[in-house]
Amino acid sequence: MSTRVRLSAEQRREQLLDLGVRLFARMSVEDLSVDVLAQEAGVSRGLLYHYFGDKQGFREAVVRRAAADLVEQTAPAATGDSLERLRQSMTAYLSFVEANYEGYLSLVRGAASDPTLREVYDEARAALTDRIFVSDDSGLIPDTPAVRLLVSGWSAMAEELVLSWVAEPGEVTREELVQLLGSSLPALVGVVSHP
Amino acid sequence: MSTRVRLSAEQRREQLLDLGVRLFARMSVEDLSVDVLAQEAGVSRGLLYHYFGDKQGFREAVVRRAAADLVEQTAPAATGDSLERLRQSMTAYLSFVEANYEGYLSLVRGAASDPTLREVYDEARAALTDRIFVSDDSGLIPDTPAVRLLVSGWSAMAEELVLSWVAEPGEVTREELVQLLGSSLPALVGVVSHP
Repeated sequence: MSTRVRLSAEQRREQLLDLGVRLFARMSVEDLSVDVLAQEAGVSRGLLYHYFGDKQGFREAVVRRAAADLVEQTAPAATGDSLERLRQSMTAYLSFVEANYEGYLSLVRGAASDPTLREVYDEARAALTDRIFVSDDSGLIPDTPAVRLLVSGWSAMAEELVLSWVAEPGEVTREELVQLLGSSLPALVGVVSHP
Repeated sequence: MSTRVRLSAEQRREQLLDLGVRLFARMSVEDLSVDVLAQEAGVSRGLLYHYFGDKQGFREAVVRRAAADLVEQTAPAATGDSLERLRQSMTAYLSFVEANYEGYLSLVRGAASDPTLREVYDEARAALTDRIFVSDDSGLIPDTPAVRLLVSGWSAMAEELVLSWVAEPGEVTREELVQLLGSSLPALVGVVSHP
């Protein structure tokens, strides 16, 4: 029995999108093009335009999928100790950036020049920070205006720490970095709560 | 006696650069142009090209000056309590961003698209973070690889906090923000030193 089956248009599009996301892991959003995908997938550019509209439509689809992957892969466990869940989520974030460095860096650094990509990036970051409050059932991270502001700052810090470390770990071990990522937020919240 | 004196070419260039920096305070680097400066200064575009080379040369000169102003205005006092000096420096940073919001935001968000502006931005940020170690004579901020990494992350956090707050202070007071900016670094260093 052959395992070769006829894919629906939707399945075919998904397959091409998967490949686009894998390419985006190792190239910047500027380098990601219909031409590159056509070559990698062995399909015509015409077919890709059919599935994704234009060049920009293809980039957006890939970046949206990559952002959704980030949010999904870093989802904290539904139950368990708050600090441990935060640590596990930050470890997953580090792994995501390691696996998708080129594309992620280009999105963080260059999103501003494209309003739609900026929006995708902002939405993903908002989803990650909102989740901090939703998933905290310990009262460790109180939902106040000052803590909301703080969490957005901490999120920028985590991004910078991970991108710097992946680019050049220097003498800092992965263990030290994970420790820092997991413990920094509670330490900062302590500053706001008990100044 | 007339106070009108003949300016040297260097003085005239400085005067035009000063005006450029004042314009940059309230417009993005993309909007900053020789045309705008020519109109504001009431001088010919030809004269500006004479002083600054081309359009890009003018932008670079303005951004370099603005970055130097930032580093200078946020310099901590030479002596005094470490925590108090950090707090005073962060208050000056907040005031700088308030006074130069449009230009500063455009530099932070868009620097990536222009390698030279990115370099100016990176140099200014490196100067600000290096200073943390130089000016700390209390041993509060030990100069270790992990703390170096942490300070770069904290610097990204401070930038995000200040830019978010200036854009929309919400219910967070200026006092609370300054408190957060001044106390967050020691709290974070505590995480690294005593995990």
